Amino acid sequence: MRSNAIILAAILALAIVTGVLHFADVEPVVVFVVAGAALGGLAWAISIATESVGERFGPAVTGALQSTLGNLPELFIVLFALSAGELVVARTSIMGSLFANGLLVLGLAIMAGARAAPDGTMRFRARLPQDTATLLLLAIAMIVLLGLSDQVGDRASTHQVTISAIGAVVLLVVYGVWLAGYLRSDEPREEAHSGEARPTLPFGMAIGVLTVSGVAAALVSDWFVDALDPAVKAIGISKAFTGLVIVAIAGNAVENVVGITLAAKGQADLAVSVVKNSVAQIAVFLFPALVLCSLAFDTRLTFVLSPVFIGALVVTALAMWQITGDGEALVFEGAALVGVYVILATLMWFE
Amino acid sequence: MRSNAIILAAILALAIVTGVLHFADVEPVVVFVVAGAALGGLAWAISIATESVGERFGPAVTGALQSTLGNLPELFIVLFALSAGELVVARTSIMGSLFANGLLVLGLAIMAGARAAPDGTMRFRARLPQDTATLLLLAIAMIVLLGLSDQVGDRASTHQVTISAIGAVVLLVVYGVWLAGYLRSDEPREEAHSGEARPTLPFGMAIGVLTVSGVAAALVSDWFVDALDPAVKAIGISKAFTGLVIVAIAGNAVENVVGITLAAKGQADLAVSVVKNSVAQIAVFLFPALVLCSLAFDTRLTFVLSPVFIGALVVTALAMWQITGDGEALVFEGAALVGVYVILATLMWFE
Amino acid sequence: MRSNAIILAAILALAIVTGVLHFADVEPVVVFVVAGAALGGLAWAISIATESVGERFGPAVTGALQSTLGNLPELFIVLFALSAGELVVARTSIMGSLFANGLLVLGLAIMAGARAAPDGTMRFRARLPQDTATLLLLAIAMIVLLGLSDQVGDRASTHQVTISAIGAVVLLVVYGVWLAGYLRSDEPREEAHSGEARPTLPFGMAIGVLTVSGVAAALVSDWFVDALDPAVKAIGISKAFTGLVIVAIAGNAVENVVGITLAAKGQADLAVSVVKNSVAQIAVFLFPALVLCSLAFDTRLTFVLSPVFIGALVVTALAMWQITGDGEALVFEGAALVGVYVILATLMWFE
Repeated sequence: MRSNAIILAAILALAIVTGVLHFADVEPVVVFVVAGAALGGLAWAISIATESVGERFGPAVTGALQSTLGNLPELFIVLFALSAGELVVARTSIMGSLFANGLLVLGLAIMAGARAAPDGTMRFRARLPQDTATLLLLAIAMIVLLGLSDQVGDRASTHQVTISAIGAVVLLVVYGVWLAGYLRSDEPREEAHSGEARPTLPFGMAIGVLTVSGVAAALVSDWFVDALDPAVKAIGISKAFTGLVIVAIAGNAVENVVGITLAAKGQADLAVSVVKNSVAQIAVFLFPALVLCSLAFDTRLTFVLSPVFIGALVVTALAMWQITGDGEALVFEGAALVGVYVILATLMWFE
Repeated sequence: MRSNAIILAAILALAIVTGVLHFADVEPVVVFVVAGAALGGLAWAISIATESVGERFGPAVTGALQSTLGNLPELFIVLFALSAGELVVARTSIMGSLFANGLLVLGLAIMAGARAAPDGTMRFRARLPQDTATLLLLAIAMIVLLGLSDQVGDRASTHQVTISAIGAVVLLVVYGVWLAGYLRSDEPREEAHSGEARPTLPFGMAIGVLTVSGVAAALVSDWFVDALDPAVKAIGISKAFTGLVIVAIAGNAVENVVGITLAAKGQADLAVSVVKNSVAQIAVFLFPALVLCSLAFDTRLTFVLSPVFIGALVVTALAMWQITGDGEALVFEGAALVGVYVILATLMWFE
Repeated sequence: MRSNAIILAAILALAIVTGVLHFADVEPVVVFVVAGAALGGLAWAISIATESVGERFGPAVTGALQSTLGNLPELFIVLFALSAGELVVARTSIMGSLFANGLLVLGLAIMAGARAAPDGTMRFRARLPQDTATLLLLAIAMIVLLGLSDQVGDRASTHQVTISAIGAVVLLVVYGVWLAGYLRSDEPREEAHSGEARPTLPFGMAIGVLTVSGVAAALVSDWFVDALDPAVKAIGISKAFTGLVIVAIAGNAVENVVGITLAAKGQADLAVSVVKNSVAQIAVFLFPALVLCSLAFDTRLTFVLSPVFIGALVVTALAMWQITGDGEALVFEGAALVGVYVILATLMWFE
């Protein structure tokens, strides 16, 4: 308990330092790095506060809460990027989160889990991986069809905003149907989440942490996006690499550590649940929700992506389905997922 | 029995009315709508006549008969479209039937079937879905490779008619090998088809209905295609949407109702069989057969499709395989298939 | 034993004849045909010598040896093609081997195996097909992403050699992890390989045969590539067809016969193992190894392929996974794989 309070205070302090650096016009690279660290911390704070709040309502509601609030910092980054007109950053942040979770984290979790298993085979329920594959294919349908129409430049390509908005509603409806069935389903959900794996907070404090972290995440995201452009230029790495790798790993840092730690401890089902839920949520909740939100901005987010991203998304969905769809995974299968991520990151480095 | 006779007479009357309207030079929109309704009715008449004839020969032959004759109206629509030089209508009709069956009808059937199941999971034999996935992948191989060659504009792209003809023969041979094995297989085929689900006719009358409906379908298809172009212009919707959605749903209306009704009644295997057989048949029998038939026309049908259609076909095949390949499906999986259809229809609306 | 010696002598004689014809400046078509036959024979000689050597070390090492040395002639063909600047031949040889094994040979083996099975269903362990699917998806990730980047012509497309080299290392590492796990795994490996299916040689003789055949394969490959260009022009068939079909079938002739013969004898697991190992090895060992080797040449081999090849690779991987992933296959599924190969070969014929 006490250690939690200290950590939370440290995270808040880091957020404040970010603000000071931002307004003191310090070197953008410094602001960028500190803000990235603060965002990682705030993601963790929101995550455990959500779980603590959710305990009141049982595991199903916890899952739903976590699904909707857990990606809060990421949501803010994309929203501020959109309001700053940084469409490339917005897109690559969303896709980067998806790839980081679905390839890097899932791959490392499988490697850890398979190594921990006595016979070298990590085993888990196949239901969630199969559901995730279905949801990803739905998102891919939207993205591939709009992308092809965009490449061809046909008449439909002049209505991308409208088509994206309709598609976003379709994705959100299916996500809702899935979530309702998933929460209602008899399967005992991963109650261990908030068990030994994570610290918990008393209800009142949790609400307080959630509020403060939420506001802080919104502010820090703004400063992070602000520092992004000059920082990237100063360091000399491509914007695509920054969004796809650095922002993605920072924004999902804590979930990553949790997923891999759980797998190494042999809690294969929990590990898979954390990672898979995250991927499904980005594809069919966060992305369409941001598309609809962006209708209020000058810079509209659509489902149009560059061909390389579309290809990467299709390959990722197929690899995740093929590797985890049968409910077991070997070390080399985890290595293959990590390998796909390394290839993608290499390509982005030279972009 | 008597009710059947009355319905059949009504359908015939509708076909005659279509002819009168056609020759009376009525507003094309009216002809188009009446002809569409008449085609739906004729499809139903041919379907039950086929089954009644088939009863003489056992369920396997019924299935084969239904496979070859059930799509008669659609065959005529495409043939008349080709002879009128309407290549876009011909292509979109074929693809539209495939998407309507594989996405909309299958999705609705799964939603109905999963809702009807006590535990919310529709269960069926996985054999036919797996076979359909294999056959669809074969068709996709033909369509994707020719499409890519066409996009690149390489030397092979100047021989599209020849390559399509050879490919059509390959598809038909594999379809024949599959059908032979499927009919020979020990699995008791869906005899219930002609049981409670549908009315039956005496043999002589069935032959008569088949002949009259066949001729009527040929004539009405001609008038339908004739009215299509001016009607579409008058209403102001895109040709792609008309072919993909309106013609497709009209041409498969009865099969659709049967599939969904069966699923809602809990006859999951039968429902899946009706829909899957239909999809497989369009992809590896109807399409290649039409490609070969078109060699006799000025307007040649090839396997070259627009990139958006190719993408939609690949996504449809993957989604069908992923969702039904394990022999069970949930409500949200049906919703996902319907969602893909809605996205595709939206895109076509703006085309 | 004696018959082996005679066959080996005949193969060596054929290799010598090739050399004589080459230096005598005979019609290139003749050199091409004789060299092709000699390469097929040398592939067989290397294959049985490898197995005989391997017997000393147990089946696991045999598998590894066969994996690394069995494709020796093919390796030489590609290396000589690269050193002669024949990039198209190099690429199509690699892809051709992959398609010949994964589509034609696997398809024929399934047809033979399913026909031999009492209930018309060929059954085998699903582990290796699943592993192969994973490895192929990894290779596809590399090839698809680089290919899309190349098509778009973005900045990354100017660093294709570097990106390919990094990707090659990733592929080789994952292959190594897989191979280590595969060799360590408890599954009894196909000891029958060297049993009744094939003749064996004494250890000393095997080493001798390996050395002589290796050197001969290197020389004959050189002459083969030398004759390729004028021969193809003389016959008037496309280079793509030559590489994809003729070279591929010649270079894998013996493996092909072994795979199909084993399947017809009912040894389904062995047959699948021979073919699948070969496909996996080409995609994630031979291809990346050649990419790295080519850094020493003027003509660099990268993972950039033409869109038609990329599409064919994706379709092949999906079809192999879909058909063999469940551990059973029917006659029509074999026919579907062969059908895809015929379609691909037809396209290449007109290229």
